[in-house]
Amino acid sequence: MAPFAEGGEPIKPLNELTATEIVAGIGQGRFTCEAVTRACLERVDAREREVRAWAYIDASTALASARAVDKSGKRGPLAGVPFGVKDIIDTYDMPTEWGTPIYRGRQPERDAACVALSRKAGGVLLGKTVTTEFANLHPGPTRNPHDLTRTPAGSSSGSAAAVADFMVPIAIGTQTTGSTIRPASFCGVFGYRPTYGEHRLHGVMEASGSLDTLGILARSVEDIALYRDVLLGIPPQPMPKPDRAPHIALCRSHVWDQFEPTTRALVEEAAARLARAGAKVSEFSMPDDFARLNDAHRSISSFEFARTFSYEIENHWDEISDTLRCGRLHDGINGSFERYVESKRIADECRNRLDGLWGDIDALLTPAAFGEAPVGFPAFAGVPLFQIWTTLHVPAVSIPVFKGPNGMPIGAQLIGKRHYDRKLFACAQWAWEKLS
Amino acid sequence: MAPFAEGGEPIKPLNELTATEIVAGIGQGRFTCEAVTRACLERVDAREREVRAWAYIDASTALASARAVDKSGKRGPLAGVPFGVKDIIDTYDMPTEWGTPIYRGRQPERDAACVALSRKAGGVLLGKTVTTEFANLHPGPTRNPHDLTRTPAGSSSGSAAAVADFMVPIAIGTQTTGSTIRPASFCGVFGYRPTYGEHRLHGVMEASGSLDTLGILARSVEDIALYRDVLLGIPPQPMPKPDRAPHIALCRSHVWDQFEPTTRALVEEAAARLARAGAKVSEFSMPDDFARLNDAHRSISSFEFARTFSYEIENHWDEISDTLRCGRLHDGINGSFERYVESKRIADECRNRLDGLWGDIDALLTPAAFGEAPVGFPAFAGVPLFQIWTTLHVPAVSIPVFKGPNGMPIGAQLIGKRHYDRKLFACAQWAWEKLS
Repeated sequence: MAPFAEGGEPIKPLNELTATEIVAGIGQGRFTCEAVTRACLERVDAREREVRAWAYIDASTALASARAVDKSGKRGPLAGVPFGVKDIIDTYDMPTEWGTPIYRGRQPERDAACVALSRKAGGVLLGKTVTTEFANLHPGPTRNPHDLTRTPAGSSSGSAAAVADFMVPIAIGTQTTGSTIRPASFCGVFGYRPTYGEHRLHGVMEASGSLDTLGILARSVEDIALYRDVLLGIPPQPMPKPDRAPHIALCRSHVWDQFEPTTRALVEEAAARLARAGAKVSEFSMPDDFARLNDAHRSISSFEFARTFSYEIENHWDEISDTLRCGRLHDGINGSFERYVESKRIADECRNRLDGLWGDIDALLTPAAFGEAPVGFPAFAGVPLFQIWTTLHVPAVSIPVFKGPNGMPIGAQLIGKRHYDRKLFACAQWAWEKLS
Repeated sequence: MAPFAEGGEPIKPLNELTATEIVAGIGQGRFTCEAVTRACLERVDAREREVRAWAYIDASTALASARAVDKSGKRGPLAGVPFGVKDIIDTYDMPTEWGTPIYRGRQPERDAACVALSRKAGGVLLGKTVTTEFANLHPGPTRNPHDLTRTPAGSSSGSAAAVADFMVPIAIGTQTTGSTIRPASFCGVFGYRPTYGEHRLHGVMEASGSLDTLGILARSVEDIALYRDVLLGIPPQPMPKPDRAPHIALCRSHVWDQFEPTTRALVEEAAARLARAGAKVSEFSMPDDFARLNDAHRSISSFEFARTFSYEIENHWDEISDTLRCGRLHDGINGSFERYVESKRIADECRNRLDGLWGDIDALLTPAAFGEAPVGFPAFAGVPLFQIWTTLHVPAVSIPVFKGPNGMPIGAQLIGKRHYDRKLFACAQWAWEKLS
């Protein structure tokens, strides 16, 4: 795991280092932030024409920021780490276009809270990563770096692809349905959706406020743990370690039959391997009526989405994709308020009940996607499978431990209890070490 | 109550009509939207130098919008009604400055969802109303229209004062602590804080995302009920009527001793009058440990506020008021994450417990402010008294039924069950009719 050979030279190219490795290397004076940023930009140069992960990238701004970090000598928890930001998140020095021609060239006057916190910690904004239109389904130009004929998934498409392709060690995404966990699975990186409500969304485009969270895409659990604290605006804590082998419960849930047979087999086999590695492994039976959460999610997200974008619906209807107009907006505009409120009640009730069902379970194990990234760039690819967890407001981590029949990555998803995100990281790291 | 005399002429000046009366009058062809808008602008002309309710007002833009409504002949639920918008809410055709010199002249490229919904319904944006700095405590220039030496309260200062002074029939505010209910009480208008989470906040400055809601300032409960539906983006329903005299429970709560003796006496007398008028009146004993909600609110709001404004703290510290830097920001920057999460748990637990304590109670009765608006323009004026209700996410309506020892208005606050906002309106109207 050590990124340095005996002689002190990095054994990996600088652009392949994790954020934690970059912070350590710069702290030890082994290389500069500018060198890391250059390495990332060279990778972008070499690959971007094919991967198309970036909505906006400006080498000179990024290099100037990197040199400023080098010069200041300040050692924040993210000092010298290049990061990417999904293009629905405001940045004062780069446009933020929300994946729609309506806001082409839109230049915010300030940074979103999460961007300001990243910069305060010493991070260097490399650029803005591609989002689907309004972080909904209509795809952007990004391709899966593992196979350019396949989708990276959405909506945090560019954030996942850029991290997977070693263009940047960490990137911010968001999640309202499966917008971080699914692209993490398809692109073979670590993805994290936090407990709902812990991170501020000031300066982040609202989609469905009752479900939206930030997301983190990274190449290690340790980086996710570090970046979570930075984005919470708290002093980073050391990577949590489990004090015992964890209790992991396989959760098939009511959507189990919709996962591909290979995926189901991989997850079941993973459960068995974790048991052999010392974990207590059980089965978690989700209460039958939690199946209502799929409809509840659809009702809440559509109703809110169609009201969030009232201005765009009234003034830019013709510039919105058919995917969105005939999908979520159609559902939301015609959605009933009574059903919306009832859906919120169901969601609340299930959240409270789940809190009482954990016993000594540390994490639930479930697939992070229905299977491999499909060929092509479809708007819809297994979306409904995530609605349960997102609606339950629980934290989730996807770890890239499986390969599908075509050699494409598939993630295992671990789910934690609300507000126990660090315990979830400890489990995810433990599982990663045993399964990878 | 009818706004027209026999001959068809309005018996009140056009700027004194409620939104409901304006919609009816325009619908019946009795006057135009332009005439109403002109009457409002004339009132602003006459009084604004003293009241200072507006951060930005542009007569020509407002009149152009009014003429467009007249010309279109479209009859939305708010057709022809001038409205004001708190200056933390984005508008594409007017600046939005958040009450801070940092954002002087800031011009958003789009309308907030609530503004777009108001315009879609036929509303005419008159201008932007004064907010305290970042919707926190540091006051703007607004004075109380009932006595210019007194505060209108904050943070929706301009929205309350403009409605109270007949400059506009309705205005949008927001509430994170008591920012709608308190100015409504001080200025003698109706104020409404909705059930948390029902209205979209896209384009509204985030303060503390776990507590923020929109607010409505108006001169009748009927207008509030109408405007709520407009802002929810649903077809307006008729004003709800109680099917029986309501069950209203006097709730003294653990902050009772902090209300002025006059206020306590007025509220107790009001309870007795409602009982004489036929209401079932009881006492609601708030569980003792709900007293923890005051600290929970302080912890949640400070922690979130200090992270929401990370960009401003990093880049504009010197342009922030001492009130804010030494108050909420100081508390929040130094706040612990563990305490923040614990506070969220306490809040969640109390919300769930309260849901089970209502029995057949329709509304709780409690003061809307500690007393009359004090002389002067202090930043702090009884803020802590609202934290319970805001943290509980319940809907609240303030009705202007009392006069204090100096003849200044004081509101009675009615509290409803989460998501039962319309039932609360019915109770508030019933109580208003009996007490006014």
